[in-house]
Amino acid sequence: MAYELFYWPGIQGRGEFVRLALEEAGAPYVDVAREDGTGPMMAGLDEPPRPPFAPPYLRDGDLVIGQSAAILLYLGPRLGLVGEGEADRIWTHQIQLTIADAVAEAHDTHHPIASSLTYEDQRPEAARRAADFRAARIPKYLAWCERVLEANPAGPRWLVGAAPSYADLSLFQLVEGLAYAFPKATERALARAPKVVALHKAVAARPRIAAYLASERREAFNESGVFRRYPELDG
Amino acid sequence: MAYELFYWPGIQGRGEFVRLALEEAGAPYVDVAREDGTGPMMAGLDEPPRPPFAPPYLRDGDLVIGQSAAILLYLGPRLGLVGEGEADRIWTHQIQLTIADAVAEAHDTHHPIASSLTYEDQRPEAARRAADFRAARIPKYLAWCERVLEANPAGPRWLVGAAPSYADLSLFQLVEGLAYAFPKATERALARAPKVVALHKAVAARPRIAAYLASERREAFNESGVFRRYPELDG
Repeated sequence: MAYELFYWPGIQGRGEFVRLALEEAGAPYVDVAREDGTGPMMAGLDEPPRPPFAPPYLRDGDLVIGQSAAILLYLGPRLGLVGEGEADRIWTHQIQLTIADAVAEAHDTHHPIASSLTYEDQRPEAARRAADFRAARIPKYLAWCERVLEANPAGPRWLVGAAPSYADLSLFQLVEGLAYAFPKATERALARAPKVVALHKAVAARPRIAAYLASERREAFNESGVFRRYPELDG
Repeated sequence: MAYELFYWPGIQGRGEFVRLALEEAGAPYVDVAREDGTGPMMAGLDEPPRPPFAPPYLRDGDLVIGQSAAILLYLGPRLGLVGEGEADRIWTHQIQLTIADAVAEAHDTHHPIASSLTYEDQRPEAARRAADFRAARIPKYLAWCERVLEANPAGPRWLVGAAPSYADLSLFQLVEGLAYAFPKATERALARAPKVVALHKAVAARPRIAAYLASERREAFNESGVFRRYPELDG
């Protein structure tokens, strides 16, 4: 049976980390809220006995899983997107959680006060938070990823071992998002992270990912998602 | 061999979620930076081949694991603090990740702009963010936990199944931290979450946890940790 992904239609958001894994594996899945046209994220999903706190969530038969990192933890072995041993799996998950932290911080650059308010309601605070994110956080996260690649005993092509994992797909997406939202700051940070740049290119060139990125299934970045381009927040 | 925990001395912080699991299980562990008196978090730990992004991290033989949720994912089965089946394990982890999100938001109430600045450097922004956290986020997180307890087919005593898991210990700690940092707002939210209150009491009464909380190993909350009491941020 096909996996069912439940997420807000119209944005990449945190659902995109799950989509990329499903697409890379060529796994059958239904993007439920998008495909049924009704819009609501809970489309077709009654309150499950184990209710996720927020989308995205994945349904696989009787199982409903929320939290994008937990979804990838579950999908990784099934999709062949994580190593076999426990050490590789926990390391891949650790990287994923760190990328998730970076994504949350990217979100908070435009919503530093409250998700329930609009960006326009928190522009001065956003300007301050984004300045720190550009100066300190983007470089720190990307430098750490570079170090992880450099230290991989199997070579610097992928984050863990000699094959791509869901963490590589997520790093690709983090770079995509940062480059969209903060093109100038991200270009500066990437100038010191050549292995991250190479990984980003290698993921984009994988046949199924390339086909996905060229398809209508890939939403464009926009100012409703996690990564938003407000030129005044780039420096 | 004893587990080794590496974390900033002098605070509970995110390391506390790991300590509670180790204490509940009666597992042998060394709180390295605290016990060797040198202070630095990296005490005795050279740059490992798989470098964590930030503390806390745990060393178990050759393995070094960062991200508190990943550490608990690793420790859960070893300490008997998670169910046997995959469905229970992924659900427990999903709850843990949601609690971790709440902890990160609690942190950002006093540091909404930048972790590298002091609270005094971001007080107006903190006041705004804390107001939303009190009004919307604390109630939302605790109501979700209440719903999880209500929906547990094994009964509302624990979050997953009929035995305590690391997620229950973490929910205890979240309630402890919120009650310290936002006593008035947390009391209001807990008035509508009686099962969360009962869980908090049940965890505190577990013999090993009670002994730990009464020991010198339990740091007091203070204004260097994740949960900080600034009365002007409570409402």
